[in-house]
Amino acid sequence: MTWIDEIQFNEEGLVPVIVQDVKTERVLMFAWANREALEQTVATGKGVYFSKSRNQVWVKGASSGNEQNVVGMQLDVSGEAVIYRVEQVGGIACHTGHASTFWRELRTGGWVESEAVLRDPQEMYHQ
Amino acid sequence: MTWIDEIQFNEEGLVPVIVQDVKTERVLMFAWANREALEQTVATGKGVYFSKSRNQVWVKGASSGNEQNVVGMQLDVSGEAVIYRVEQVGGIACHTGHASTFWRELRTGGWVESEAVLRDPQEMYHQ
Repeated sequence: MTWIDEIQFNEEGLVPVIVQDVKTERVLMFAWANREALEQTVATGKGVYFSKSRNQVWVKGASSGNEQNVVGMQLDVSGEAVIYRVEQVGGIACHTGHASTFWRELRTGGWVESEAVLRDPQEMYHQ
Repeated sequence: MTWIDEIQFNEEGLVPVIVQDVKTERVLMFAWANREALEQTVATGKGVYFSKSRNQVWVKGASSGNEQNVVGMQLDVSGEAVIYRVEQVGGIACHTGHASTFWRELRTGGWVESEAVLRDPQEMYHQ
């Protein structure tokens, strides 16, 4: 039995992945991985995921350059969720130019933008 | 349109919830919420979730006493994942007595226990 056999993939063959920045401890994004994505992550040290909408494995940062160096992986008690501990290249995980994809916070009136755009998305994807 | 309408529930009517400790910044657990659980969380300020296995809403800590005071809520760019920012009562989120449910870490040989049990589970559930 190897490490991957202890992961409880769901009926779609996927496991939730929480991506956390090792320097800031911010949760950068939520994503999914299948067996192949996890194996590629461990083999390459880069954050690799599975896109449900595109139905394929994707390497974070392949188009934006904002890749992730995965320095650790954690598994929850049930084996049903994984954390990637990452160094976020460029300090930006969101395609909007925010550091984290979780840039909305609930206030009394609704969700508000709680952090600044660090880089113009146009600039990130057209270089 | 209210705050809850911006959440993209999946086909089961659920949204992934990442639970993060505001003091330690540790990710304490991964869970699911439905509309009712989110509304109860906001209304009561306590961490409320939806159990897929039991098919019901549950209040974290109802049996262990280790409830969560939710001091903030964050939403990701797609509206498909939520973070509860919590104060973890008793400092223990896992039924095993660990601070976090993510107490396994990947090393070369496989998953290893990377943090101590803080309290005997027997003691937590029999008082």
